[in-house]
This record gives sequence, structure tokens and C-alpha cells, in this order.
Amino acid sequence: MTERANFLQIDAERLWRTLNRSAEIGPGRAGGLCRLPLTDADKEMRDQFVQWCEDAGCRVSIDRLGNIFARRSGEDDSLAPVLIGSHLDTQVAGGRYDGILGVLAGLEVVRTLNDGEVRTRRPMEVVCWTNEEGARFQPPMMCSGAFAGVHAVDWVLDCQDDDGKVFGDELARIGYDGSAPVGGRDIDAYFELHIEQGPELEDRGIPLGIVSGGYFTRGMVIEIEGENAHSGPTPMDKRKNALVGAAMMIVAANDIGWKHHPPGKSTSSRILVWPNKPGILPNYAQVTVDFRHPDEKTTRAMESAMLAAVDDCCERANVAAKVVQTWEFGNEVFDEDCIALAKNAARELQVPFQEMLSQAGHDAYHMTRIAPTALLFSPCKEGITHNENEHIEPEYTIPAVNVLLHTALARANR
Amino acid sequence: MTERANFLQIDAERLWRTLNRSAEIGPGRAGGLCRLPLTDADKEMRDQFVQWCEDAGCRVSIDRLGNIFARRSGEDDSLAPVLIGSHLDTQVAGGRYDGILGVLAGLEVVRTLNDGEVRTRRPMEVVCWTNEEGARFQPPMMCSGAFAGVHAVDWVLDCQDDDGKVFGDELARIGYDGSAPVGGRDIDAYFELHIEQGPELEDRGIPLGIVSGGYFTRGMVIEIEGENAHSGPTPMDKRKNALVGAAMMIVAANDIGWKHHPPGKSTSSRILVWPNKPGILPNYAQVTVDFRHPDEKTTRAMESAMLAAVDDCCERANVAAKVVQTWEFGNEVFDEDCIALAKNAARELQVPFQEMLSQAGHDAYHMTRIAPTALLFSPCKEGITHNENEHIEPEYTIPAVNVLLHTALARANR
Repeated sequence: MTERANFLQIDAERLWRTLNRSAEIGPGRAGGLCRLPLTDADKEMRDQFVQWCEDAGCRVSIDRLGNIFARRSGEDDSLAPVLIGSHLDTQVAGGRYDGILGVLAGLEVVRTLNDGEVRTRRPMEVVCWTNEEGARFQPPMMCSGAFAGVHAVDWVLDCQDDDGKVFGDELARIGYDGSAPVGGRDIDAYFELHIEQGPELEDRGIPLGIVSGGYFTRGMVIEIEGENAHSGPTPMDKRKNALVGAAMMIVAANDIGWKHHPPGKSTSSRILVWPNKPGILPNYAQVTVDFRHPDEKTTRAMESAMLAAVDDCCERANVAAKVVQTWEFGNEVFDEDCIALAKNAARELQVPFQEMLSQAGHDAYHMTRIAPTALLFSPCKEGITHNENEHIEPEYTIPAVNVLLHTALARANR
Repeated sequence: MTERANFLQIDAERLWRTLNRSAEIGPGRAGGLCRLPLTDADKEMRDQFVQWCEDAGCRVSIDRLGNIFARRSGEDDSLAPVLIGSHLDTQVAGGRYDGILGVLAGLEVVRTLNDGEVRTRRPMEVVCWTNEEGARFQPPMMCSGAFAGVHAVDWVLDCQDDDGKVFGDELARIGYDGSAPVGGRDIDAYFELHIEQGPELEDRGIPLGIVSGGYFTRGMVIEIEGENAHSGPTPMDKRKNALVGAAMMIVAANDIGWKHHPPGKSTSSRILVWPNKPGILPNYAQVTVDFRHPDEKTTRAMESAMLAAVDDCCERANVAAKVVQTWEFGNEVFDEDCIALAKNAARELQVPFQEMLSQAGHDAYHMTRIAPTALLFSPCKEGITHNENEHIEPEYTIPAVNVLLHTALARANR
């Protein structure tokens, strides 16, 4: 590091003004955000972000899935860039910081380098990934996944939301159907700062988590097939009520989570039922469940227990079921060199840190497939997230943003 | 009865042609019907029905809720009319006969009287009640209920479907917002023929059921309140997942049904969840459950068991719940004289019959409040109903239609 760069500090007030401006776009019901991807609110936020990036002297490019890359030139622009980013979309009842902090901290890094007139050897890019939350189009981490080659671009463009609206149409509607290819280029490194989404850092008063790995997560979508019948005269032993089968499976998944708690957990947060009306037994239901545990083998055992429970529930509810989709994440490997750089930066800045596991999925997981990657956490209040009351304090957050700055700076000068 | 009237027989082929024409309007996915109230399909069916009635010389009037009355004059038109009817709307995956048979059998009675040039002392009216199924607007049996004074007309007009569309707006949209007052006039008697919706008549080879009462039914809508949180890091003991609470309640309701089976039964066929997305624990769920048993006391005991289970589920799922709506039906009293008329007609026509209980709700239940009422059943194949495979055969159905004819004729000549 040059001496000047060594003393660079981000502008906390500017970052908070930027976060607060974001918090005005797509307001939720209760003080948080409802900024689903490819909605008008998403477009407004993207427009604002692009404007900020251009004002900071970046060249903005958009790829075919609407991923936004704001590039700050390096001394040698032929070198692979260092990326910093996360996502600007939120859950339906989302907070103001989940994902957003990571993107706007990247912007703040660029602004700080500009203020300090610091040039880097490699170019830097601030990236906003499309549809990380999966709240409107499933799966989550969709477009970082496509960037890393996990999903085909055309498959993503054809995805539909619950109202049958098509991803590609909605992307074009908001004008973010860019022309840049999705992925397929060299990335020197990827850094992501995210709120922890758990209470550990706050509890211990530690302002920085350096993620060494993830809870291994297995998810599945189960379809249940029953039979329409009248809810009145049909005797209990003739019923094939898909909703009853689905409910039994949700209860079974919950029991499996408790059996491995702590630190294991299980979730069912989504159910679809048809016709879902009074008076008629539903012939169709779909449930989404997932299982998480730091130990991959235990997660797989939880999944096996669920598959056995599905069979049992089918027998008890007199329905049929099949698993129509599965996914997993959390065994991705973060890069030792990138982690070492982050630790060095933290030590130089005298920021206390701890290594920890991530319990949620992040765009960084996908990026490990194509670039050396590190994921940093900063504390959030009481671990509350995916909730409009999600909250962070500047004094707990700024140290991690400064570590992000100096980590990315060191890597970009490599 | 006059001698000529005594030998009247309905025209089975004509009735079947009429039923088959109805089966073309609002086709389902699998050979049945999806004719939800106040949709374009409902309008098309109503237009066809009104045309048929006018062709049969009836004077058609529509009340403020779209109930259709097709009046055949009597010798003394100042006397209260005899009503025959049911409903033309269906479930989302409904059959071709549920309700429809009752209305079109009424039309066939009028046509048969015309053919025989039979005048009756009292006027007769064929009635089509709006929204019996409750598949789009809840509760079921909505507009016969309003006719009988159970629901306020303005309350019905303000009801919304799941998409937020308003009953009154939709009724006006299809042009069936009539000007006749809803109820408030003398009805001499009400007769309804309906498919049994159970397998008993078919099993025994008996073509006519005369309903003496109903299974007592108690229903409730339960709202469950949880808390939004991330589906990943949130530990099991901090979760307030409204869907898990709802699933436990659905399982509990099902268990209660089995405990009282036979002849008791319980149903959950409808659930609403918010936000109902992956990645976020839902803070809201709503479930609809009902309990049925021939014995009112047992049904009430099932309901009490459910209320205790709701408390237990709340504790286990760490959520709160409240019952926001309840309803009951099935203890209505059918009229002895009307039942005696039906039995006489059956004996004269040599149609075997049995007395039985209804397990489903019917418009006739509400009509017992304001008029002497009888409800007749004819067999349906394997008791399958609220299913697109619902089926009836002419040879099993025509005897009951002839009994309807002679029962209504006898009453109208009283």
C-alpha cells in the first residue's frame, strides 16, 4: 500500500445518506422495504444506483440478465478486475440493509478512492446482482448463479413469477435487458460485505466476521397429488386431501429441525394449493422445505429423514407425492489469499474480527466457482433480518466497510 | 290431482339435452365445469337459462343479488308461489350436475306442465340462486341466505373475491344486478332436487332420497400470527412461523375427524399465507376448517377439541391465533307436509325411496327459515362430486324428477 492509501477511511455520513436514500425506494408496510426484482421500485433503485456510479466516474455496463457492473479503471485495464458487490432487491417484507449494504459499500469504496485520488493497478467493479432474494422468481441468487455458469441464461429469462409474468419480459419492461454477455470473462477476485443475519457478532461486540464457510443447506420442492371431492359427504377413509398431506409434511420437516437443534434447522415458508377453496378437497399442493446444518453429513441425514417422512405422510393422508426440485449450497470454499488479505486489513485497522460460518445463501457462494472470493459480515441488531425491523448502526458497520476498502485495494494492486 | 295431471311424465331426453347444453358453458380442464359466479361463463349460462324460461312462457325477474325467478302464472296469481330451484354456479373443478340438475329439473317441470296444458292454482317459480358454492365469494349458499334474511344485501354486494374484485361490481358487469327486492315476499313452499353427493342411494339401488335433516356442521376461519424472519440463521427456538402453526392445526383438525369417523368428518381445504415465499418465515396464515356429524352435540364437541388444539398448536409453533369467523348449518327442519307430499308422489309413481340426512349444505337449508321446504336427492355415480368426473345416469335420475313434478304440482294446487 502507498502511504496515502494506507490512511484512507470511508465517509460514514455519505454512506449512510446513500443507504437512507435507498430506503426511500420501494417502501414496505412497516418501515422496511418491499423491492421485488424487476418491479418499478427495482427500476427506480437501479436508475439511482447507475446515476451514482456514473457520477463517481464509473463506466456502467448491464448484462443480459440485468446484472449491473460499474467499472473504475485501473492503471492496466487489460487486467482482470476486482469485483465488490451484492444485491439491491429485497424480500416482500424486507429490511433496508440486506444486500444493499454490500452494493453501496462497494460504491463508497470507489468514492473514497476517488477522494484520495488513489489509482489501482487492476480495474475495480461494483456489481449489483439481479434477484438474489428469490422472492419473486425462484431460485434465490439467481443471476450471480447464471454469471458463474450454474444456470443457463435462457432458462432464467423464461422463469415466471406466481402471476405468470416472465423474467425476460419484466426485465425488458424496466429497461435493464442489457447487451453484455453473462459471465465468461476473467474476474481477479470477488468481495462481498453483508449483514450477518444472526446475533453472534452483536452479542460479542465484534464488528467484523470473516466467513470461512457455510451451513450446508439442502432444499426441495415437493408436489402432492390428491383428488377433488366434496368436503361434506366424502368419508374420511375416501379422502385424498392434498392440503392435509402437505400440512403433515410441513409438521414433519419442523420436527426434523428441532431434532437437530442447535445448530440444525429446518424451514417451510411456502405452500401452493389448488383449488384452495372452501367446499372442495384440493387435488394439488406444493411445499418448499429446507434443512441446514454446519455438517454436510447431518444435513443429508435430515434430508433422508424428510424423504422417509414424505412416504409416511402420503400413506397417512392417502395422497401421492414426488420431489420435483432440489438444491444445495453452503459447502463452497472461500479463498485463502482473499481471507488473508481481509485479516491483514483488519489487523492494520485494528478492527476486531472472528471467523464464522454463514447460515444464509449469498451471491458470494456462486462466485467461488469462478473467482477467488471472500465474504465479510458486519453485525445487525438482534440478528433480525428478512423483517422490516432489520437494523444496523453506523458504529458497528463502518469498521467492516473500511476493511472491505483496504482488502479490495490490496487485491487490486496485486 | 286431475286425471290428466296424474299421468304427466317429464321428457327425459329433453332434460338431458338441456343438461348437456349447460355442460358446454364454462368447461373445466377434465370434462367437468368451472363456472364461477359472476364470470363471463356464469353470464352465458344465465342468458341461456333466461332464454329457455321465456321460451317456456315464464315471466323472468332478477333481484338485486342476481337471483333469477322464472314465474309460471297460476289460476290465482295473488297466491304465494311454489318455488323449485337450486344453483347454476360450480366449483373450480366442478361437475355438470351439482345444483344444475335442480334448476333445470324445475325448468323441465314447467315445460311438462305446458305440454300437458296443466294449469295450477298457485303460480310456480323456477329459481336460480346466485353463488351457492362459495368458490369465489364466501360463504357458500350466499344469496339464498340473503333471500331468507340471513345476510344483509349490502354486505353481500360488498364481498370481495381473492383478487379483490367486488361482488356488486362483478354482478353489474355481467348485467344481472336486477331491481327486484331480495326476499320479503310470501313463498308457499320451496322444493329442491339435488344429486346426493354420497354413494348411499347408488349402493342400494334406490333412485330417490327424501331428506329429513342434515349433518350438523360447524366451520371456522382461524388467523395465525407469527413473525417475519430469515429462514436460514434464525434458530428453531426463535422462530414464529405462521405456516408451521397453520400446518399443525390442519393436522389436528384431520385427527379430530378421524376420531369421530364414521360418521363424523373434518375438512381443511383452504390456506392463505403471507408472504408465502422462500427465504422468509411467514408472519400470517389463515386456515378454514369444518366439522360434521349427524349429532349436533358431537359436532360441537369436535369444535371444542379443535379450539383446544389451536391453543396447543400456538404453544408448539410459538405463534398466536384467533378464530375470526364461525358458521353452522344442518339442523334446519324440513317441512312435514312437503315431505308427506313427496312420499305420496313417490308411492303413486312407484318410485322406491328412503329418508336420509344431507351431509352438504344446500340452498334449501336457508329456505326452511321462510317457507315450508323439502329437499330431494337422486343418486350420483360413486358419490363423486366437486370433481370433474361427477356423473349421473338418466335411469337413476328421471324417477326423482317425476316425483319433483308431482310433489310441486300437488302443492301448487293446494
